[in-house]
Amino acid sequence: MEDLYPSRGQEERIINRVDKTVYSNKNFGQQSLDNIQREQYDENGYIVVPNLFSADEIKELLEDIEIMSSNDELRQNEEFITEPNGENLRTIFNQHIFSSAFEKISQDGRILDKVQQLLGGDVYMHHSRINIKPAYVGKSFPWHSDFETWHCEDGLPRCRCLTAWVMLTDNTHFNGPLYLIPGSHKKYVCCKGMTPAENYRYSLKKQEYGVPSVEAIKELSSKDIVAALGKAGTLVIHDGNIMHGSPDNISPDPRTNAFFVYNSVHNKPIKPFSAPTKRADFLSLNDYTPVRVKS
Amino acid sequence: MEDLYPSRGQEERIINRVDKTVYSNKNFGQQSLDNIQREQYDENGYIVVPNLFSADEIKELLEDIEIMSSNDELRQNEEFITEPNGENLRTIFNQHIFSSAFEKISQDGRILDKVQQLLGGDVYMHHSRINIKPAYVGKSFPWHSDFETWHCEDGLPRCRCLTAWVMLTDNTHFNGPLYLIPGSHKKYVCCKGMTPAENYRYSLKKQEYGVPSVEAIKELSSKDIVAALGKAGTLVIHDGNIMHGSPDNISPDPRTNAFFVYNSVHNKPIKPFSAPTKRADFLSLNDYTPVRVKS
Repeated sequence: MEDLYPSRGQEERIINRVDKTVYSNKNFGQQSLDNIQREQYDENGYIVVPNLFSADEIKELLEDIEIMSSNDELRQNEEFITEPNGENLRTIFNQHIFSSAFEKISQDGRILDKVQQLLGGDVYMHHSRINIKPAYVGKSFPWHSDFETWHCEDGLPRCRCLTAWVMLTDNTHFNGPLYLIPGSHKKYVCCKGMTPAENYRYSLKKQEYGVPSVEAIKELSSKDIVAALGKAGTLVIHDGNIMHGSPDNISPDPRTNAFFVYNSVHNKPIKPFSAPTKRADFLSLNDYTPVRVKS
Repeated sequence: MEDLYPSRGQEERIINRVDKTVYSNKNFGQQSLDNIQREQYDENGYIVVPNLFSADEIKELLEDIEIMSSNDELRQNEEFITEPNGENLRTIFNQHIFSSAFEKISQDGRILDKVQQLLGGDVYMHHSRINIKPAYVGKSFPWHSDFETWHCEDGLPRCRCLTAWVMLTDNTHFNGPLYLIPGSHKKYVCCKGMTPAENYRYSLKKQEYGVPSVEAIKELSSKDIVAALGKAGTLVIHDGNIMHGSPDNISPDPRTNAFFVYNSVHNKPIKPFSAPTKRADFLSLNDYTPVRVKS
C-alpha cells in the first residue's frame, strides 16, 4: 500500500493532508454536532464543548483514578507510566478496560454521537489514556501530531481517527493546558529521524522522534496558538493530526484529563509505515469491535 | 543584627513581612506612580505599565543583546549563563555595565521616578540581568522570592528592594511568561534546607534552595495566580519579595526580558544571613553609588 504520509526520513518537510476531516454531515443519535460546529471542527481541527459532564460524573471518574493509582499490583502493568526522573504517575493507558466508569463514558452518546459523525460511522477504540500532570512537577509534552506516531509506529493507513477527551480537573492557563495550532491538521509534517526499535518504551516518557522542528511549528502557526481551557467536565474533540503540545505545570493545581482515541473501522492498522516493529498491543489495541452507544 | 527573615532552616514556615511595600507617597520627578497605582502596588506587590518604551528603543536594546551574545570573548565572563544541558544563553547579568543602551534605560525617569518613590529615595543597582527564554527549549523557573535569596545569600537586611523590568519581546500566555502570586509579598516563606557553599554556581542554572513547597505556594495563593503579559516595551515593577516563577517556553516565539534590581541605599548588604559565603560580586554589586535620572 502506498504511504500517503511518509515520515521519519532524512529530511523534514511539510505536505498537505490527503484525507477529509469530517466524514459525515448527517446526524448520529441526538447529540452529534450541528452545522456550525462541524464547520469549526473542519476549519480548526478541534472543538470544545464546555461543561458536558456533571460534577458527580467527574467525581466518580476521579475516584476510579484514585483506586487504580493506589493499587500497587495494577501499577506493575505496562499501562502505568511514571514521570521521567520520578515516581509520580504520568499516564494510565486503557482506563476503559480497567475501570467501568471510564468504560461507560467511552460509550456515552454525548461523546460517541459526535465521534461517529465526524468519522462517518462505526469506530473502535485505538487506545485510551489518562494524562495526569501533577501540580508543581508535571512536565511538558513537546509538539507532535498523534497521527504521525499512529501511522509510523502502529500502521494506521489514513487519517480517519480522533481523540475525544474529558477534563477531569479545571484546565487553566497555569496548570499545563493542551496547546493546539488551529488548522495544523490540514498539513502533515514528515519528521526527520529514523525510528529506533521499541521506541515507545522511551517515547512515552519523553518523545524524541516524530517531533517537528521549531521552524515547522512556526510554519504551521498561521493562526495563533490556542490553549484548550475549561472547567472539569468539558469535552474536547481534536483531529488525530492536529499539532499539539503542553507546557509543564508549575502551578499548585493538578491537571488531569481522560483521552479516548477512536479510529474508523475502515482504517484498521496494517503494519508500521516507518518503524522496525509495531508498538506494544496496549498502545494499539487489536480489538476492533465497534464501540456503540450505551446509555 | 537580628535576622527578621530567617530561612534555610530545618522546617518550612510562613511568617509576616515586617517591612513596608511603599516607602513614599510623594512624587519623584514627573513619572512616578499616582495614588491608585501605588495602592495597587502595595496590595498586589506588582504593577504593569503597558507600552512604556517605543519600538525603536526596544530595537536598540535587542541589537545590543545580539552584539553581546555573539561576542565569544565576552561570553567567557561569569555574567553569561547557559541553559542546563545546553549552549543556549539563559541569562546575561549586569547588562547595564556591558551595554550603554541598557545603562541609559536603567537611569531613565520612566523607571527611576517610580522606583525612587516606591523605595523612598536614593537607590543603587544590586544587579541587573536579561533573561532569555528561547523559543521551544527555554526552561521553567521554579517559584521563589528574590528577596529570600538576596537576604540569605547576599545579606540584604530588609525588604526595601524591587525589580523593574522591561519586556523586550511580547510576553504571551504561551512563551513562558512570569507568573506572580498577588499579595504574596506580604508573607515570607522561611524555606527548608541549609544553603551549600557556592550555591549560586548551581542555582543560576537551576534553583534548588530557597524554593517553597507546593503546600506553601497553595497557602500564599489566596488570590489567583496572574501572568505578567504585555507587548514589547511594557514595564513591570515587582516587589523583591513577591512569589513568582515561570513555565517553560514550548512556543515558537522567544521571550526576552531585561530586569533591573534596585535596592535602597539604606539597605546595603551586611553579610549573608543564611549561607556560608556571600555570592559572587557580579550578583551583589558593591558599587553603592545612587542611580540618578539622566534623560
